[in-house]
Amino acid sequence: MNDINVWGLTEKEIDTTKYSLNATLFALGNGYIGTRGNFEEGLELEEYDGTFINGFYDYYDLSYGEKYKGYPSRSHAMLNVTNGKKIDIYINGELFNVEKGTTKDYIREINFRKGVLTRKLTWISPRGDEISFESERLISFYEKHLLLSKVKITPINFDGSIKIISSINGNVKNITKENDPRIGVEFNGDELRVIKSSIDDNIGKIISRTKSSDLGLVCVMSNRLDCTGECSTSYTEYNELVSHTYDVKAMKNEPIILQKYVLYKTYKYVEDNIEKITSDNLIILLKEVMDNGYKFYKCKQKDYLDEFWYNSDISIDGDDSVQQGVRFNMYHLLQSVGRDGLTNISAKGLTGEGYEGHYFWDTEIYILPFFIYTNPDIAKELVEYRYNLLEAARKRGKEMQYDKGALYPWRTINGEECSAYFPAGTAQYHINADIAYSICKYIEASEDEDFLVEKGVEILVETARLWLEIGQFNDDGKFHICCVTGPDEYTAIVNNNVYTNFMAANNLKNAYEAVIFLKNKYPLKYRELADNLNIDEVEINKFHEAYINIYIPYDEDKKIYPQDDSFFQKPAWDFEKSKGKYPLLMHYHPINIYRAQVCKQADLILLEFILNDLFDDKQKKRDYDYYEKITTHDSSLSTCIFSIMANELGYYHKAYDYFIHSVRTDIDDIHNNTTAGVHTANMAGTWMSIIFGFGGMREEKGMLRFSPHLPEKWTSYSFRISFKGRKILVSVDEKGVEYKLLNGDPIVIYNKEEKLELKR
Amino acid sequence: MNDINVWGLTEKEIDTTKYSLNATLFALGNGYIGTRGNFEEGLELEEYDGTFINGFYDYYDLSYGEKYKGYPSRSHAMLNVTNGKKIDIYINGELFNVEKGTTKDYIREINFRKGVLTRKLTWISPRGDEISFESERLISFYEKHLLLSKVKITPINFDGSIKIISSINGNVKNITKENDPRIGVEFNGDELRVIKSSIDDNIGKIISRTKSSDLGLVCVMSNRLDCTGECSTSYTEYNELVSHTYDVKAMKNEPIILQKYVLYKTYKYVEDNIEKITSDNLIILLKEVMDNGYKFYKCKQKDYLDEFWYNSDISIDGDDSVQQGVRFNMYHLLQSVGRDGLTNISAKGLTGEGYEGHYFWDTEIYILPFFIYTNPDIAKELVEYRYNLLEAARKRGKEMQYDKGALYPWRTINGEECSAYFPAGTAQYHINADIAYSICKYIEASEDEDFLVEKGVEILVETARLWLEIGQFNDDGKFHICCVTGPDEYTAIVNNNVYTNFMAANNLKNAYEAVIFLKNKYPLKYRELADNLNIDEVEINKFHEAYINIYIPYDEDKKIYPQDDSFFQKPAWDFEKSKGKYPLLMHYHPINIYRAQVCKQADLILLEFILNDLFDDKQKKRDYDYYEKITTHDSSLSTCIFSIMANELGYYHKAYDYFIHSVRTDIDDIHNNTTAGVHTANMAGTWMSIIFGFGGMREEKGMLRFSPHLPEKWTSYSFRISFKGRKILVSVDEKGVEYKLLNGDPIVIYNKEEKLELKR
Repeated sequence: MNDINVWGLTEKEIDTTKYSLNATLFALGNGYIGTRGNFEEGLELEEYDGTFINGFYDYYDLSYGEKYKGYPSRSHAMLNVTNGKKIDIYINGELFNVEKGTTKDYIREINFRKGVLTRKLTWISPRGDEISFESERLISFYEKHLLLSKVKITPINFDGSIKIISSINGNVKNITKENDPRIGVEFNGDELRVIKSSIDDNIGKIISRTKSSDLGLVCVMSNRLDCTGECSTSYTEYNELVSHTYDVKAMKNEPIILQKYVLYKTYKYVEDNIEKITSDNLIILLKEVMDNGYKFYKCKQKDYLDEFWYNSDISIDGDDSVQQGVRFNMYHLLQSVGRDGLTNISAKGLTGEGYEGHYFWDTEIYILPFFIYTNPDIAKELVEYRYNLLEAARKRGKEMQYDKGALYPWRTINGEECSAYFPAGTAQYHINADIAYSICKYIEASEDEDFLVEKGVEILVETARLWLEIGQFNDDGKFHICCVTGPDEYTAIVNNNVYTNFMAANNLKNAYEAVIFLKNKYPLKYRELADNLNIDEVEINKFHEAYINIYIPYDEDKKIYPQDDSFFQKPAWDFEKSKGKYPLLMHYHPINIYRAQVCKQADLILLEFILNDLFDDKQKKRDYDYYEKITTHDSSLSTCIFSIMANELGYYHKAYDYFIHSVRTDIDDIHNNTTAGVHTANMAGTWMSIIFGFGGMREEKGMLRFSPHLPEKWTSYSFRISFKGRKILVSVDEKGVEYKLLNGDPIVIYNKEEKLELKR
Repeated sequence: MNDINVWGLTEKEIDTTKYSLNATLFALGNGYIGTRGNFEEGLELEEYDGTFINGFYDYYDLSYGEKYKGYPSRSHAMLNVTNGKKIDIYINGELFNVEKGTTKDYIREINFRKGVLTRKLTWISPRGDEISFESERLISFYEKHLLLSKVKITPINFDGSIKIISSINGNVKNITKENDPRIGVEFNGDELRVIKSSIDDNIGKIISRTKSSDLGLVCVMSNRLDCTGECSTSYTEYNELVSHTYDVKAMKNEPIILQKYVLYKTYKYVEDNIEKITSDNLIILLKEVMDNGYKFYKCKQKDYLDEFWYNSDISIDGDDSVQQGVRFNMYHLLQSVGRDGLTNISAKGLTGEGYEGHYFWDTEIYILPFFIYTNPDIAKELVEYRYNLLEAARKRGKEMQYDKGALYPWRTINGEECSAYFPAGTAQYHINADIAYSICKYIEASEDEDFLVEKGVEILVETARLWLEIGQFNDDGKFHICCVTGPDEYTAIVNNNVYTNFMAANNLKNAYEAVIFLKNKYPLKYRELADNLNIDEVEINKFHEAYINIYIPYDEDKKIYPQDDSFFQKPAWDFEKSKGKYPLLMHYHPINIYRAQVCKQADLILLEFILNDLFDDKQKKRDYDYYEKITTHDSSLSTCIFSIMANELGYYHKAYDYFIHSVRTDIDDIHNNTTAGVHTANMAGTWMSIIFGFGGMREEKGMLRFSPHLPEKWTSYSFRISFKGRKILVSVDEKGVEYKLLNGDPIVIYNKEEKLELKR
């Protein structure tokens, strides 16, 4: 582990057994386009390649042995789109392919500050021709439609012919169940169909349309070749493959350089001319991009990342491996996150087909905190996304036979529920409260009152209403919520899940308070909203009544919260017997898991982190001690939360162990499934483990409090927090903690119980 | 409703809109073969025809949006087999078809004492040729492989040509989801394939084999034509259709009579010669059957039914409509029930494809009582069936990760679990206890100690073991059973369902006592069993400990049993709002139904009938009053039980109303789905409503007790009960009740609290 690249990821040997795994790790993206890190020249056995556009999907039918009312009849999955990476190279007629011949001096690197993937190697062909090869690839943060590639080939020991074929290929398919039952979906392979492909005037073009979602994609390409020798060029378009071919009379030591510009743009199919308009505009953009040139976008890429790291970086001294993991995770979050208000961040980002490109509650509870406190502009787009889904969520509520309110889908891209197993899908109503919670956190930190007034109140009211639909006041005068599944998916369809009830109460409270606020401060706005949504005093008072009377089960003997009403009545899980059988879900029928006291992930412990100030330290400690023993962490959403709470409770070694488990999950392929994509929620969990865990940051009543702790292995660490327009640098070392206001007006914060006013 | 046929079902007009419904009502069967009542000559629009062999099925794959460990990967469904009914008739070249021309004097009847379906009509062809037509059909109770038909055609106003084509047709398919999503299964239509068809020597033959279940079917046919005119005969075999064609020079008023003998025999495919052996044997049988002749089988049919009605009849004076319904139901039960120990009675008998020909707990809790107390020989075959499934149930237990014991499938033909929705399938563990309970009831009534010793104890122990696998002793010292679904499918995956817990305790108790009995009376048998099953003292004592400490929730305030631990915490169902939305399952997502206090069917009330002596009258009354209000009876298994308990509690009007709902369910197509087949459990429920309800019969500690009540509308009724080798006739009228011992040694019974010794 010497010589760890703390600002990037480096590979110094080609290990073809890890080719597909590394295609995930070296994937590039800008939140719109994402492409896996496969080589330009490809390999013979090319598995799990993929290029994705955030939010670009097609439908497939869901089937059920028994289907009931309200079951989604179809799902959708992110599509693998036109491959724009491919550059085939022939050296004196021999195809360049590192599986053959001899490869030397290999190095591949993704640089987190430059945002460029580079590769260098020397290759000796089977016949003995030696070349030096260099490639670069970037997906532009500045121009979101742009995928840029460059290859440089230099003959070392020969003069001869070098042929370069640069292509865009529309003949692509998703992974099917047949290829890989764990990842693949029920696609036939004809979901994305090329409807036009052409090449002329040095511009290649492929237009594709989805089979059933009425979405379309235009991909255009242009190339520029620089060389000293003679070169002839030809264009071909064949079988959904559009290519430029360069035949170069290469000379020893004279480099040949190809620049490849590929643009992607999607459209919603309305009528045929939308395709022409989109592609015409894209060709205009292509010419502009060519004019700007390669260096311009490399430069812009650096600028963008400079700002990102200035806002977001966490610096750690004392453990390069951790430092690398932390930055790798933040970098992938940036690459994955949609920032147009219409797309979000999927469970695997734009790096693979796992979870079908769906968005979950992961965004709100795990990922949004990172953006809220580092890049509030991006956070805003993520909350906007949920507002854009509100109409679909209302429709879903109706589908589920609720008279009022909105029910957000458990997993989705376009707003329709895609979960085919309701006990761990639709029954996880808590997603409504999670969204409401995170919106309030966003508004608090960003002071985006405009969002609150224009959109936030509406979401808060519509989500709160659903709790009145599914909950009820019992004879005890308390508000109960039956038949739900909490975050822990190893316990399903229970009554009064503590997480759900507290979060629902929080949702109701925030909705109530937001309406009162609106009524007082923006009476006209209130009138308009009240009319549109049919809000009246009675209903608002019912919000209030429900949240102040929320029923919370509590075990007076154990002095512990049961996860739900009946959790403590269930038998203990036999951990001795289930050794080697993780994740349990792969080895036991769900009902056997549901029957026992065993948790897949943080549930109550997550709640005690999120609504931190509702529980005292002793309570948290008792609960932590109890639930830790019975949690398998079979979900990647778990260890980061246990790390945070272990820190809060002073279990520093545990905190560090859990953190370590989470920080290099993908780089070290700990779950053995990173080939299918990175784990974005866990990546953000790493950030949370540091900021909320080691840094001890909490936001309460609009104020930040820190209680930093320095892990034993580290000599110092620092991080940056954006809050209410300020940027605060927090630096911790053996001597203590230092807070520095980097910009904005003075602000009061707390260091543990000590009040500090930070000034510049 | 005048002139009701109390010993049959009569139709006097052809209503083509009810053709498919009536094909169910006029279906014939003998527990082995069943065939729907479609006309010999067919109609142009021939829907929902079908011929079935009990237990003859093929597989299809089950699909799930999300599939977990222990989910069945395939299901199986009863196949529609070779059609042996068809007889096409041409009158001077015109096809006889009642949809065309004019039909007069139509009458169709199934006679419950003769077991023959007859039809008579006069038909005038579009061109004006008039014939008289008579047909008869029977499926022999005496020779189970035999389907016998006869048609008699007499020209009324012409001499001319009459062509008769008698066929067996192997080109048949099941109803698919495309035809009818409510009934059809995921079959492709090639599940039953003809592998050989031939005709020679007046014998037609079709051999078919299933695609994946390795089952085969031989169908053979022979015909005999009697007429006075000239007749030429030809044989054809074309496209899986094998036919005899008779061309007759018909003369006015001279009848032409065709007898058609069709035999069916299934085999388990092992190697190719099994087909030859089976068909050779069947042809020998066919010749024997032809020799015996038509009248012989009609005579045997009558004999068989004489005995059946002697054993089973319920006679009711004062309401012919009820009388007809009661006999119709009993007759269909007889037609549907498998009696070879390898087959059972499916939810729709052999009358249609609904529920895929699967067997459920319906047999044990609803249907077996009828056979136990009227035809114990048939009851024995039904309990034998469960013994034959024991190995498959052990395997299912293992699949579900249980170390010991057997878990009977919720729905099956061959023993494999076919339920694709575990919350209302595998979670209904109570089927284990239901089977154990009914076996004990059978043994008690039949005194079949041999069955107990050889097979019963083994079933009792293996079913009991499963409760130790899924239940546990909690800190209160009580035995709890979590995460189960009781009989009521509108409440799922709950803890301590009262029905399940009491029945599990009963299962454990009976297993414990059976083992002790075996050990004391048959020590060698015990040793053998104990060795085979690894039974030891510790385990047996644990059975005892579990049943004496069974946990039963009880609401001390309401003085009512909650259906399960949390039932009373759930909100009331809004019946006002759900008006017109029954069955609820077709209108609400399951989780919304699960969330509320609403029942599909008798659950606790069923328990209080089954384990009658565990509850006192006041308790039963309180429970009945509470649960009646919240039960929708969306299941056809419900009203008969409410009728019985209403009788017990003196709610005589209610009892009669529920009974009336159940007694003509199929004849009057009350659930609007009898087209897919009769409701066998409800049919047996009718019997139960009379015997256990109006008759007030209970079996306690090996003794029968009666508490008869005469419904207001009736002047008298009587029924027959087989018990411990005796046959008892119970007659009730306005003066009171009379008990008569028809055969066997004297026996003590109770009339209410009065002890009576019956002698012949």
